[in-house]
Amino acid sequence: MDWKPHVAVVGATGAVGVEMVETLEKRDFPVGKLTLLASARSVGRTLPFRGRDHAVTELTRESFRGIDIALFSAGGSISKEFAPAAAAAGCVVVDNSSAFRQDDSVPLVVPEINPQDIPGHRGIIANPNCTTIITLMALYPLHHAFGVTRVFASSYQAVSGTGAKAIEELQGQVRQIASGQPVTREVYPHQIAFNVLPHVDVFLDNGYTKEEMKMQVEGRKIMHHPAFRASVTCVRVPVYRAHSIAVSAEFSKPLTVEAAKAVLAKAPGLQIVDDPAARRYPMPLDTSGKYDCAVGRIRQDVALENGLCFWVSGDQLLKGAALNAVQIAEELVRLRR
Amino acid sequence: MDWKPHVAVVGATGAVGVEMVETLEKRDFPVGKLTLLASARSVGRTLPFRGRDHAVTELTRESFRGIDIALFSAGGSISKEFAPAAAAAGCVVVDNSSAFRQDDSVPLVVPEINPQDIPGHRGIIANPNCTTIITLMALYPLHHAFGVTRVFASSYQAVSGTGAKAIEELQGQVRQIASGQPVTREVYPHQIAFNVLPHVDVFLDNGYTKEEMKMQVEGRKIMHHPAFRASVTCVRVPVYRAHSIAVSAEFSKPLTVEAAKAVLAKAPGLQIVDDPAARRYPMPLDTSGKYDCAVGRIRQDVALENGLCFWVSGDQLLKGAALNAVQIAEELVRLRR
Repeated sequence: MDWKPHVAVVGATGAVGVEMVETLEKRDFPVGKLTLLASARSVGRTLPFRGRDHAVTELTRESFRGIDIALFSAGGSISKEFAPAAAAAGCVVVDNSSAFRQDDSVPLVVPEINPQDIPGHRGIIANPNCTTIITLMALYPLHHAFGVTRVFASSYQAVSGTGAKAIEELQGQVRQIASGQPVTREVYPHQIAFNVLPHVDVFLDNGYTKEEMKMQVEGRKIMHHPAFRASVTCVRVPVYRAHSIAVSAEFSKPLTVEAAKAVLAKAPGLQIVDDPAARRYPMPLDTSGKYDCAVGRIRQDVALENGLCFWVSGDQLLKGAALNAVQIAEELVRLRR
Repeated sequence: MDWKPHVAVVGATGAVGVEMVETLEKRDFPVGKLTLLASARSVGRTLPFRGRDHAVTELTRESFRGIDIALFSAGGSISKEFAPAAAAAGCVVVDNSSAFRQDDSVPLVVPEINPQDIPGHRGIIANPNCTTIITLMALYPLHHAFGVTRVFASSYQAVSGTGAKAIEELQGQVRQIASGQPVTREVYPHQIAFNVLPHVDVFLDNGYTKEEMKMQVEGRKIMHHPAFRASVTCVRVPVYRAHSIAVSAEFSKPLTVEAAKAVLAKAPGLQIVDDPAARRYPMPLDTSGKYDCAVGRIRQDVALENGLCFWVSGDQLLKGAALNAVQIAEELVRLRR
């Protein structure tokens, strides 16, 4: 008989948690039973799943008895506190936070790239950073074919990456500006409406933010490519959903635009949207709500010898978070067959 | 007696033209007489200058008799049609369009960088592309000190760069979305509200847009640096005013963040805004309406040997257009003394 795991979603009422529940349903994941966990604050709320409202229950260290797979998206401190307990209870944790990504005993997985790392888990599997996942969806197939050495990248990141409150903040500021009221803010240190902030995540000693360094740090681990270098500037833009990244990538082998497109056309989870004459290129408005990432503006880089410039966009709540986590869970089911 | 030139502003009612008139007044430019020129459509409109309304008159080939300096900002085709006639009539044209920028007989000038090119003009001086000017305000002083070889850059460009109609389009779309109406568009090929478009200017055969290649093409001419390479992605963002650019720059000499900051601190027209701990970095909302550009997020580039990563923001209607043109006119006045 097929395995129908008991699945828990931790942080079920957050921006990513809601997408996790929806993705489990839409992809027909073989959920035997679904448990929705969140902080005491969210108890009393329900989420629909397969036509029935499911109540949110309070997350405790006892929550994981009998649960097979737990998808965590409640922030790093919750993961640090509860994921080891969940793993000790026999549950496999797929953790969307950055808490365990650099732990050598924790696989960091994009299923299209390194599914082979999943079986080595010891109870926790980490979901990579959203901007890193979306970039690698286009970069990894090119790396596989041409050997990437380094990238220079800039991101255009949507507010939903910060959570539901950031969506409300952008909406609120737009309303305040329209009615001539003073702009208030709580989530971001500066107005985000009609502005851009070169500031995502905390600043590190080297002047980069943690988010910016994730591309290199997580990219190395996911691609098994310790020499990979990435210089990134991460920028928050007044877009509700889907991140975009402009990339200049250098390769060890020569490549043409045609050869790159042939590689990208075969890449799973990726659509080529690249017809400038018809004004077709990836945009966050188009990739919002989509499982596939989109790559376009593919061109020979004028400042690199073996270089390619491209633009990739993807829904950071889906492929950048919930979908990737559910895909990892799907691999876990496949491995049990 | 000091020269008080008769100044014409061509395209006076456009987004940049209005700023030119205001900048002439604010900087106390020694205007002897001011003539506002535009298409027949704008005749009847007036602009305030030194406390008095000035009428807009129709641009014709006869408009330039007796005019000493003409600031053009009415698009490339108007410049091509009228600038040579103006120059033939003895007027010095400062042209904000791209029409003559690559003409060997036309100096392409950022007064803080290459004022020495102005005296060689033959009646026309070109104002560079806005994104290029703003980037070079930080890049050139670094080049002067450390010798730039190439840059990788991504832009975050405001809608006012497209003109007054684009501002209305963004405002209109925001209103339509707020009231649940369908989004209409005329200026941009796609919705710009809550979206980003990796498309500024027309596409070239090499896959870059013309705007993207301007950084290299114009940068070479302005910096007198024919080997300079620039790989750029230009992106329109839902910001009303001021462009921002994320830059990774490679230099021929080694440099430290401290040495770079010491150079940038002395650069004219540039403010260092770089205190991440206090959440201070350049933002378009802060540089809007300012003459100076702002540079921040200055850090050693992790993917280059002698590299620096930085973020620069500036008002593209002012330093990127009107202010730079008026500064060139100021140099013309200085040369006559």
